[in-house]
Order: sequence, then structure tokens, then C-alpha cells
Amino acid sequence: MTTALIWPGPRSIEPVTPEALQGALAQVDGFLWMDLCPPKEGDRELLRQALGFHPLALEDAFRARERPKLDVYPDHYFLVFYAVDYDPENGLLRVPIHLFIGSRYLVIVRPGAIPAVEEVAARWAGREPPGPVAPGSLTYTLLDAIIDRYFPILDRIAEEVEAIEERLFAGSDGRLIEGIFQMRKALLELRRVVAPEREVINLLLRRELPIFKPEDMAYFQDLYDRLVRLTESIDLYRDMLSGALESYLSLQSNRLNEIVKVLTIASIILMADALVAGIYGMNFRYMPELEWPWGYPMALLLMAGVSVGLALFFRRRGWL
Amino acid sequence: MTTALIWPGPRSIEPVTPEALQGALAQVDGFLWMDLCPPKEGDRELLRQALGFHPLALEDAFRARERPKLDVYPDHYFLVFYAVDYDPENGLLRVPIHLFIGSRYLVIVRPGAIPAVEEVAARWAGREPPGPVAPGSLTYTLLDAIIDRYFPILDRIAEEVEAIEERLFAGSDGRLIEGIFQMRKALLELRRVVAPEREVINLLLRRELPIFKPEDMAYFQDLYDRLVRLTESIDLYRDMLSGALESYLSLQSNRLNEIVKVLTIASIILMADALVAGIYGMNFRYMPELEWPWGYPMALLLMAGVSVGLALFFRRRGWL
Amino acid sequence: MTTALIWPGPRSIEPVTPEALQGALAQVDGFLWMDLCPPKEGDRELLRQALGFHPLALEDAFRARERPKLDVYPDHYFLVFYAVDYDPENGLLRVPIHLFIGSRYLVIVRPGAIPAVEEVAARWAGREPPGPVAPGSLTYTLLDAIIDRYFPILDRIAEEVEAIEERLFAGSDGRLIEGIFQMRKALLELRRVVAPEREVINLLLRRELPIFKPEDMAYFQDLYDRLVRLTESIDLYRDMLSGALESYLSLQSNRLNEIVKVLTIASIILMADALVAGIYGMNFRYMPELEWPWGYPMALLLMAGVSVGLALFFRRRGWL
Amino acid sequence: MTTALIWPGPRSIEPVTPEALQGALAQVDGFLWMDLCPPKEGDRELLRQALGFHPLALEDAFRARERPKLDVYPDHYFLVFYAVDYDPENGLLRVPIHLFIGSRYLVIVRPGAIPAVEEVAARWAGREPPGPVAPGSLTYTLLDAIIDRYFPILDRIAEEVEAIEERLFAGSDGRLIEGIFQMRKALLELRRVVAPEREVINLLLRRELPIFKPEDMAYFQDLYDRLVRLTESIDLYRDMLSGALESYLSLQSNRLNEIVKVLTIASIILMADALVAGIYGMNFRYMPELEWPWGYPMALLLMAGVSVGLALFFRRRGWL
Amino acid sequence: MTTALIWPGPRSIEPVTPEALQGALAQVDGFLWMDLCPPKEGDRELLRQALGFHPLALEDAFRARERPKLDVYPDHYFLVFYAVDYDPENGLLRVPIHLFIGSRYLVIVRPGAIPAVEEVAARWAGREPPGPVAPGSLTYTLLDAIIDRYFPILDRIAEEVEAIEERLFAGSDGRLIEGIFQMRKALLELRRVVAPEREVINLLLRRELPIFKPEDMAYFQDLYDRLVRLTESIDLYRDMLSGALESYLSLQSNRLNEIVKVLTIASIILMADALVAGIYGMNFRYMPELEWPWGYPMALLLMAGVSVGLALFFRRRGWL
Repeated sequence: MTTALIWPGPRSIEPVTPEALQGALAQVDGFLWMDLCPPKEGDRELLRQALGFHPLALEDAFRARERPKLDVYPDHYFLVFYAVDYDPENGLLRVPIHLFIGSRYLVIVRPGAIPAVEEVAARWAGREPPGPVAPGSLTYTLLDAIIDRYFPILDRIAEEVEAIEERLFAGSDGRLIEGIFQMRKALLELRRVVAPEREVINLLLRRELPIFKPEDMAYFQDLYDRLVRLTESIDLYRDMLSGALESYLSLQSNRLNEIVKVLTIASIILMADALVAGIYGMNFRYMPELEWPWGYPMALLLMAGVSVGLALFFRRRGWL
Repeated sequence: MTTALIWPGPRSIEPVTPEALQGALAQVDGFLWMDLCPPKEGDRELLRQALGFHPLALEDAFRARERPKLDVYPDHYFLVFYAVDYDPENGLLRVPIHLFIGSRYLVIVRPGAIPAVEEVAARWAGREPPGPVAPGSLTYTLLDAIIDRYFPILDRIAEEVEAIEERLFAGSDGRLIEGIFQMRKALLELRRVVAPEREVINLLLRRELPIFKPEDMAYFQDLYDRLVRLTESIDLYRDMLSGALESYLSLQSNRLNEIVKVLTIASIILMADALVAGIYGMNFRYMPELEWPWGYPMALLLMAGVSVGLALFFRRRGWL
Repeated sequence: MTTALIWPGPRSIEPVTPEALQGALAQVDGFLWMDLCPPKEGDRELLRQALGFHPLALEDAFRARERPKLDVYPDHYFLVFYAVDYDPENGLLRVPIHLFIGSRYLVIVRPGAIPAVEEVAARWAGREPPGPVAPGSLTYTLLDAIIDRYFPILDRIAEEVEAIEERLFAGSDGRLIEGIFQMRKALLELRRVVAPEREVINLLLRRELPIFKPEDMAYFQDLYDRLVRLTESIDLYRDMLSGALESYLSLQSNRLNEIVKVLTIASIILMADALVAGIYGMNFRYMPELEWPWGYPMALLLMAGVSVGLALFFRRRGWL
Repeated sequence: MTTALIWPGPRSIEPVTPEALQGALAQVDGFLWMDLCPPKEGDRELLRQALGFHPLALEDAFRARERPKLDVYPDHYFLVFYAVDYDPENGLLRVPIHLFIGSRYLVIVRPGAIPAVEEVAARWAGREPPGPVAPGSLTYTLLDAIIDRYFPILDRIAEEVEAIEERLFAGSDGRLIEGIFQMRKALLELRRVVAPEREVINLLLRRELPIFKPEDMAYFQDLYDRLVRLTESIDLYRDMLSGALESYLSLQSNRLNEIVKVLTIASIILMADALVAGIYGMNFRYMPELEWPWGYPMALLLMAGVSVGLALFFRRRGWL
Repeated sequence: MTTALIWPGPRSIEPVTPEALQGALAQVDGFLWMDLCPPKEGDRELLRQALGFHPLALEDAFRARERPKLDVYPDHYFLVFYAVDYDPENGLLRVPIHLFIGSRYLVIVRPGAIPAVEEVAARWAGREPPGPVAPGSLTYTLLDAIIDRYFPILDRIAEEVEAIEERLFAGSDGRLIEGIFQMRKALLELRRVVAPEREVINLLLRRELPIFKPEDMAYFQDLYDRLVRLTESIDLYRDMLSGALESYLSLQSNRLNEIVKVLTIASIILMADALVAGIYGMNFRYMPELEWPWGYPMALLLMAGVSVGLALFFRRRGWL
């Protein structure tokens, strides 16, 4: 569905033709908001004609396969960001959002629903901005809403990481490895979204970008700080997961160690006793013990003695 | 086979002599396309005489052993790229392509067939360019075609990586390690092509290169973005493979752990039972149990009791 | 509780209203010290009106979720640091402290008690500064007191690391892994506080910050040196813990190796002896040895011979 | 042996005294080539007096303990490189070569034979250079000859790495680990030569060095490219060896896993059968089965049944 | 003990009072050498009054807890270095040395004996410098003597590393891991001294430091080169130790693998033989073999046959 609004107004433009868009922009202080979700194939030509976007940027926006980036064109910027959703079943879901930011327009191209964008759109559509619309603060509002959604996702991952850590020293659990694996993958994918976005905002802060006003920079700095915090938290959780896996494996190997030792010692003792029994089960004609009245209890006592002796021996060598 | 075409035309130059080449270039707005595949030894001298290439660049091009790089000479650039093919049997196949890019000529030296190049050549040979040929857009077209072929290869690797991940938690599979090893090697070799190419394009973007026009830069920026995306994807898949191998080994060791525990406990129980049997197999003359009418069932019951007792004991200690 | 003092004085301002604050600042050479711990919601508006702080900085300070950072506003700086406490039970506790530093005021916002801050406040509140208050040296005094508390924490961690190392080669100890895991986590969290703080002070040293005087720089350089030392020590202890874990696991696996070898050899010997006993326990009618008068001692001697022979064999192969 | 030649000529200078050297250099367009191999102690004073070399540079050259480096003195450069030889028995052999490069002289100090240097010397000594000698191209020729020898060494290492990879999936081989260890060490030592040399050539390219001519730079760029290629190949082989070792260990542990499982199951089955035999070996007076005519075959059948039953059970649990 | 000498002279100053020091420095071309080892508490005030050192620098020097660093004050530098001693029992011993370097004085503060410093002091005290004392060359001489002591320590570590490598493939050795652990710790601690010292000298080279003369820079460059060489050697030995540990563990696990396989196979064979014996030990009335005259040798032959058959079977499966 394509939405095109013009401020002050906000008046909806219908039908959306190149002429209608250019007419709307010709208006004094007019600011155009367009939201293509999902874009129709004809929209590409529409945007090229009405707003003169670069074919490569349009290609990226309509094929929706780019990583987060910022391309600076003479009269507009092309910004790619990712909205993210998380679901323990399917892992991380990423929806790209492509922004064309001009001094008089903001064009959004996105292949699917992004709650953060719709919420901002609803808030802006409902009220009349008091003065001319500033593209900088509008961009900030959008990116802010998108980044705000990253934090609850990271919080959920953090909760799962802490749950994993707690189960770590509680005992053996085969699903732990799978859980660690899933968390690492989710963090890897989240980092792959957040780290380039941080670079994009950094680029945006370092360059002189005439469309944004100097007072907008404090806001973009705020976005940058939050993205830095996100990447650092992701790295922290990744380190914690690595440490957890390492400790888990060490503990497992320790427990196996302990069990194998105890069981092997038990089997040695049983074998020694069985050897005693085997000896007195031999059929030699001349075995004096067999004739002794106390032979049988003596044999049992011998077994008990061998068992206790071996147990003491192993304990003394520190194997038990 | 050596192909030499001159635009506008495209007229084929035959025979290819230094004089013929220089004559063709003397033509107003003429643009020379040469494709040496594979180069003959005499071609080296031909290129040196007709176009004045540097001996070191010619050495690199004819010995075909260079990594991706960009050398800037006063009136032309020497660019080395790699076309890549992938085949599960033989892994990654790399064919170097050497480009000498002047303002009026593009000379390609390559040791073997590269479908991407042949396709571009066919497209250009068939139609008359509307105006003078721009070396920047011709270079972009060529590199774009080469880079385009990387993506399906990465997609196939990605599919195999995902197949490996799916098999990971499904059970033991000895071929998994070999698969991970092959994938890592392929990714390592692909990265070794892509990462220096990314640096080459970055260099090309940062330097003032008079042969290319400013409007070409958006196209080279696009190539750069795609190479960045490729390297990031390669690194992601390498990280995923590392994680997969680690998880696989942990799972394997966990399973071994579990099996060894169960089997060792079973052998302890069997040994304890065998000890009971061995005791009553002793040949002592005075063993009262042997004379009991219910001695035999009692012994069997004792074995059953020992078995159940040990099983309960091990379960209580959490070993079962 | 909100404390507001004005120097020279120090006179306490009550009630704390925007007008009272601005009046106090209008005084010649007046310097305002405010300490909000914890801040009330109305304080946010108070600070915005009286001192004109940026909404984003106020948001950060009142939601207390930022990493260490320095934001430079035209007439004041916004600095976030962390006070740290350590407790073997709960690990590292972090309390953020937010400083608004102007040429005539220092405003502290913090969610909880920080002994270092209270101590500095008590020292300053009690005595009249001889001349006008310098924000640089006041900031230094505060940060110095906060950083001073990191060192005993690191010392305690260092003691535990050394205790772990000593126990390492002394014998098997299942709690060692948990101890290493806890120490690594504490170091990771401490590093996450210290490393960005180091960057903050570095930024503060490299930028021309008009509110601080050039002679303050030696003091901030001192803070920087100590934070560098802290991060290096943290990294050293992390490396030592990694080495300790690796060595511990190697030793464990070595010991298991040794024990398994010895026990398996023992079981082989017992089995061989049992086989001899089993053979002479067979019920064949014609077994000449059974009739021999010395058959029984001979069988026992055979067992002893087999045992010694196998032990020698295994020793010769280096398995024992 | 000390060789001193003067061009044009090449006339040999004998005896080599400070006066003779200075006289030779006073000649118009004269270029001095000196080769000290190994240097005598008196040569140090000779070089200091005749050519004014810095005591620290002479100290380095005569004690032959430096890493590759470039020191720039006002009227000459001091360059340290390493010639390398490889021998499967002794690993990597390194011979340092120290070059003092002035606009009118090249002085070589080296402790032992370097075939690459001797070959260059022979080529130059035999023919008269057509014009004045350029120190840049002479330096290039020398370094080029030295670097050329690195490639066959790397090729041999590469062959061994590939041989290791092929043997990897073919079966267990105890020498594999030793081979990997030797290769890693050789690569580590080769990298330690090549990486600083790359930095040296990079420094030489970035600085304005008046003794070398601008047209020499293309040649030094060529050396730089080759050293970059070498380091990248070394890193690739190191990564491949790491991957190979990891895969080898995983495979080994997998095979052990498999074998231990099968053997433990076999021992469980044998023990169960032995228990049956033990039960019927008990000496109870009242054991009805012992009197049955078909008791013996029934017992054997019971054993076979237990064996098959356990095998099926283990197969069903996926342990076999 | 506090030593204060004035050059030319060298006359000893006694008593050491602020006035005496300032009087000595007022002398034309006078150069003051002070060596406080260990410093007395009163010396701090003395240095502050007589030479105007910064309180922070004095704090660092008297509390002796700093890492290597260089602080630049307007009229002097404050340099912290470490002298190092190594002892297989106690590992690395570090003694800090603090230098205050002015154009007319060198003040040394150190908590304990440093042979390198005492040797330099003795050399300087004994002879009269020919001209005015240069602080640069004096500093170089001191640091050079300190750094010279690092090399024999590294050589000893290198010898131990090589000894470890040689023992690696010779057989199992439990102390090897402890040796590797100690060496890694010593290298880690040595690196922690050398790496920041390298940075200090690098800083000293890059900054314009008016107290040192341009011709001193070649000497400081020499120190820098040696510290770079030291860090590279340390990193090389650390890599070699990592490789050695990894190979050792692989070999150990391989050997365990081999032994466990052989012993488990032996136990299978013994169990199979014991089963045969157990079967003929059963007490069934009707067991025809028991009555056969050749029953007993046949049973023994059966056991031998089973043993050989199993051994062949395992060999064929490649387990033996």
C-alpha cells in the first residue's frame, strides 16, 4: 500500500502520479511523506521521475537485500536500516527499511510491516506539525522508534543467557548446548544488524550533511550512544556464553572423570572378588581349603577383605 | 585467442600489430577493446610497444600469479581481479583477470575462460554504443558481472552451512566434520579473493582517478557495498561453522558421556550378579545354602535384588 | 534527597526552586553544588528550567541506563561514570553517577548511595574554599575518589586469582572451575566499566574543553594513567585465568589418562587370572591337571606368573 | 672475505684502506660496491672512517642480531633483510644481510653465504654498466633476488600442508600432529621474517627518500606486493593447518567414540552370556534345569537369545 | 641512601638541602645527578621545593606503583621504567625506576637495588665528563643498561621453551604442563613491562622534546628497535608455547586413544575366552562335550581360536 501525505495538512495525495508529487512539493513549506509497503514495481519509475533518485539506490530499495548503509547523493540521502523481531522458535526476524531523505521529503520503502514505523506514521498523521517539518527530527523519530525495539529483544536474550548460567552449575543438561548455540546465533545475527547501523550513524555524525541541522546532531549522537551500548552488550553476552560453554564442558568432563574413576574402581573390586570365587570354583581334587569346615565363610571374608583393602588403597592414592 | 575491436564500429583489427593498434587509437573518439585469452608470448612485446605498459605490470599479467590489486600508472591503471567458480568436488576455482584501463582503451589479459567477461563482450560487440565509450562504465560493467557470480556461490555455501546446522542436533554423523572442514576451506579461499578486491575498490574510491568520471563513483560505491556485504556474509558463515563444530563436538562428547555412563553401570550390575553366581559356584564342602531346597531361586532373587539395588543407587547419585 | 549548596558559603538553598538557583548563580563568584540522590521526577523540570540542560541528557540521567560517556554541550559537559562495589556473593555492583559540569555549577544525579561521593561532599561542605571554586579540580576530586575504590576490588580479585593458581597444581578440585567462571565474569563486568571510562578521560584530554583549566590536565592525565593501568591489570588477570583453566583441564585430562591406564591394566590382569580359574573350573571328565597333587598350587602360581608377566609387558611398552 | 669494486670499471680496490675507498669515491660517477662476508673486526673502523656510518648501525651490522628494519640517516640508509633457506630436518635457516645504501655506494655486511647475493654480484661484476650506477635499481635487484627465494620455500610448505590435508580424512596417523606442529613453526618463523620486511618496504614507499628515484618506486611497489602476497599466503596456510588440526582431533575423538561404544557393547553382551554360564555353574543341589535333558542346549540358546536381544536393544537406542 | 653529585666535578653535595641543590644548579654548566634508593619520606618535600616537581609525579615515584610511562612537564620529563630479574623459583621480579629528567639534572627514585643503574652510576662517578653533561645521552645510557638485562632473561626463557619442545614428542610427562604454564606466565609478565616501555620510547621519538638533542634520536630509535624486537620475540615464544601445549594435548589424547583401544580389545578377547570356560563350567547333567576324551584340549583350542579370530577381526577393522 502506498501512502503519500503532504504537510502542512496533512493532505493525502491521490492518485499518486509524478505530477501530483511535484505539484505538492512546489507548495511553499510543503513536506512530503511517502510510505511504500510493499512497493509496487511501477513505484520505482514513479520515484525516479518525480524525485530523481539514483537507479542504484532504487535497485537496492526494491530488491531489499542491502546491509545497513548510508549513501550521500547531492540532494538527498539514502539510508538502509533494519527493524528486528525475535521469537524463540524462529530466532531473529529482520525487516529492512529504506529511507530517502531530502530537505522536503521522506520516502520510506519497506517489504513488510514494521510496527515502529506505523506508530510514528500514525502519530504524525494525526496532528498538524506547528511549523515546517524538519527532515532531521523526523528521521531521528523513526530511527529512535526502530532502535527502541532492539532493547526488549536484547533483554530477552539476556534473560535466557542468565537462565543458562544458572542451570550451568546445577547439573548435566543436554539441551544446554543447543540453547547456547541458539543464543550465540541470535546474538551473531543481531550484531550483524547493529554494528553496521552504528557505523552508519557515526558516518552521519562525522560528515557535514546540509539537510540535517546542527541541533539535530545531539539527537543522532544519542542514537549512536545507544547503538554503541547495544554492541557492547551483545559482545558481553557473547563472551558470557563462550565462558558458559567452556565452563559447562569442563564441568561435564570433570563429572565424567569422577564417574569413570568411581565405576572403574568398583569394577576392579568386583573382579578381584570374582577371582576369589573363581579360584574356589576350580575343580582340583586336592584343594585343602575346600574341605575346611570354615572354608566358605573364610572365602567370603577374604572377598570382603580384598574389597576393603582395594578401596583403602585407591583412597590413599587419591583416586576415590 | 586475441580479439581487438575498435569503437565506434565495432571494427575488428586484423592483423593485430603495434602500428594497427596505434592507428586505431589515433582515430577521433576511438576506443580500443582487446581481450587476450590466453595471451601468447608475443603479445607482451606488442602491448609494451603499442600502449607502453610497464614491464612489471606485463610480467604480472602474463604470469598470472598476482592477488587482487590496483596499480596506478600515469596514463592507465592496472587492475587484477578474480572470477570464481564453485564445484562441491573440487572446491573453489579461481581465474584471474588483468585489466589495463586507459582513457581510450581497455585491455584484458586472462589465462582461461570467464563466462562473465564473455557475456559482457558479446553484449558490447553486438551493439554500437550511442556516444564515445566511457572506460569507467565499461570497467564497472565487467566487475559487476564478475561480482554477480560470487553471490550464487555464497548462496550454495550458505545452503550447505544451513544443512549442516540442521543435521547438527539430529544425531551423530561422521561426515559432518568433513563437510564443515570443506566449507571452511571454501570460505577461507573465497574470502582471500573478496577481501583484497574490496580494498582495491576502496582505493579506487578514495583516490582521485582522472580516467574515471565523478558520476562513475556511485557505481563503484555500489560494487564496494556488495563486496563489503560478501565479506561480512563470509565472516558470518565462518563464525556459524565454528559455532556448529564446537556445538557438534560438545554434543558428541555429551552423548559419549551418557553412553559410557550407562554401559559402565550395566557392566557393574552384571559383574555383581556374576559374583553372586561365582560364589555359589565355589566347591566348598560346607556351604549350607547349596543344600537348601530354595537355594537356587533364592540366589536368582539375590541377583535380581542386587541389580535393582545398584540401579536405584546409581539413579539416586544422578549417574543414570 | 536533594542537596543544593552555594559557595562561597556554603549556604544551603531552600526551597530549591528555579528562581532560587538562578539567584544563587547570579551572585559574583558563586558556585553551585547540587546532589540529587535519588532524583525526584520534578527535579528533571527544575534542572531544565534553571540550568537549561538538554532533554536527552536529562533523560539519560534520570533513567540511569547509560554507559560511561562524555557529552559536550556548549556551556556544560554531561559525564556518566560508575561507582563499583564487589561482594563475593553477588559479584560486581555498579551504581551510575551523572555529572553536569558547568563553569559555575556541578550537578550530580545518582540513583543510590556512593560512599566516594558522600565523602567528597562532606569534605567540601565542611570547609570554606579559599578562593573561587574550580569545576576542574572538583570533578577531578570526585572521579579520583570513585576510581580509588576500583583498586581494592581489583586487589581482591587478584588475590582470588592467585589462590586459584596455587590450588591448580595441588590436585583435583571441582569448585575451581566455578571459581574461575565467577572471576572471569567479575573481570568482564569490571572491564566493561573501566574501558569506556578510560576512553571518556582520553576524550576529555584530547579535546579543548574551555571549562577546565590547562593545569587541570595533569590531574586528568593521572586519572587516565590509572584507568589504563586498571584495564591492563584486568586483561592480565583474564589472560592468567584463561591459562589457569587451560592448564587445569590439561592436568585433569592427564590425570584421568593415567588413572584409566592403570585401572584398565589392572582389570586386564584380573581377567587373565580369572580366565585361568575359569579353565580349571570346567567340568570336563578328562582334565589331567585336576588330578595332580600339586595342581592347585600350580594353578595359583600360574596366575601369579600371568599377573607379573603382564605387568612387566605393560611396563616395557611404557603404559604403566 | 671483503670485496670492493668501483664502477665504471669494475676495478677491484686493493688494499682496502680508508684512503683508497675515499679516493675511489672521489672519481666522477664512481660507484662503490663492497661486500663483507663475514666482516672482520677491523672493517667496522674502516667503514666508520671512510664512509662515516653511525656507530649504532655498525654495531647492528657486525653483531647481526637485528630484525628487518630501515634506518634513515642524512646521507645513507641502513637496511636489514633476511635470506632464508628451508630444510625439512632443521626447519628454517635465516641469514641476515645488512645494506648501507648511499647515492654513490652500496655496502653489504653479512655473516654467511647468501646464494641470491652472490648471483647478483657475479652478474654485475662481469659486465660494465652502460651508464652511472643507480643505487635504487641495484637495491631492488638484490632484494628481488632474496625475495624470489622465499616462494619455492613457501611452495614446499604448501605441498606439505596439502599432503597433511589429504592424509587427514584417510585414517589415524600419529605423525600427523608432529607434521602440523613443524609446519606451524616454520610458518611462524617465516612470517616473522616476511612481515617486518613488508613494513620496511612500505616505509620506503611512503617516505620521500632522495637517494632513490621516483621511477624506482614502481619496482619497490612490486616487492611490496609480493611480500603482501607472501604474508597472506602464510596466514592462509596457518589457518588451514589450524583447521586441519581441529578436524583431525574431532575425527580422532569421533573414531574413539565409535570404537569405545562398540567394544563396550560387546563386553556387555559377553558379560551377560557369562552370567548365564555362571548361573548354571552354581552348585545348588536343587536346580531343576540341570537335570533336564535339553538343559545344556537350552542354556546355549538362552545365551544366543540374550546376545541378539541386547544387540537389537542397543541398535534401537542408536548406540550401535 | 641518597646520593647527590654535581658535574663538572663530580663533587658530592652534603648535606642535601634545597639550598645546596639550588646553589649547585646555579653553577655554570653544572649538572646534578641524584639517586634516591630507597627514598626517604622527607625527600619528597625536598624535591618539590628544590626542583619544583609536580605533586602527582612525586606521588607516583614515592608510591612506586606505576606502569611504564612518560609524563611531559614544561621543564622536565617524568619517566617510569622497570628493571627485571628472573629466577626459575619466583618467576619475574620487577623493580620500578623513576627518572626526573631536566636539562640540568637527572633524579632517580627507586625502591630497591638495580645493578644496571649502579653500574652506570659507578662508571659516571669515576670519570670526569669531557664537556657539559647531556641529559639525553645520560638517559640513553641508563635505559640501555636496563634493557640490556632483558635479553639474557628472554634467552633463558627461550632455552626453556626449546627444552619443552624437545621433550614434547619424546613421551608423556606430567610436569610439561606446569612448565608451559610457568613460561606463559613469565612471558605475560615480561610483555607487560616491555610493551608499555616500547610505547613510551615511541612517544619520546614522535614528540618534539626540547631537552633531548636531535642527534640523541638515533639512540632512542635504537632502544625502540630493541624493545620492538623483544615484544616480537615474546609473542613468538607465546605462540610457540600455545602450539606446544596444543600438540602435547593432541598427542596425549592420541596415545590414550591407542592404549584404550588395545586394552579394550584385550579385555574383549579375555571375556570371550572366559565365556567358553564358563560354559564348560556349567553343571548340566547332559553335556556331551564333558565326556569326550579330547574335550578339555578341544576347549583350550576353542579359546585359542576365538582369541585369534577376534584379533584378526579387529585388525581387519583397523582397530588394532
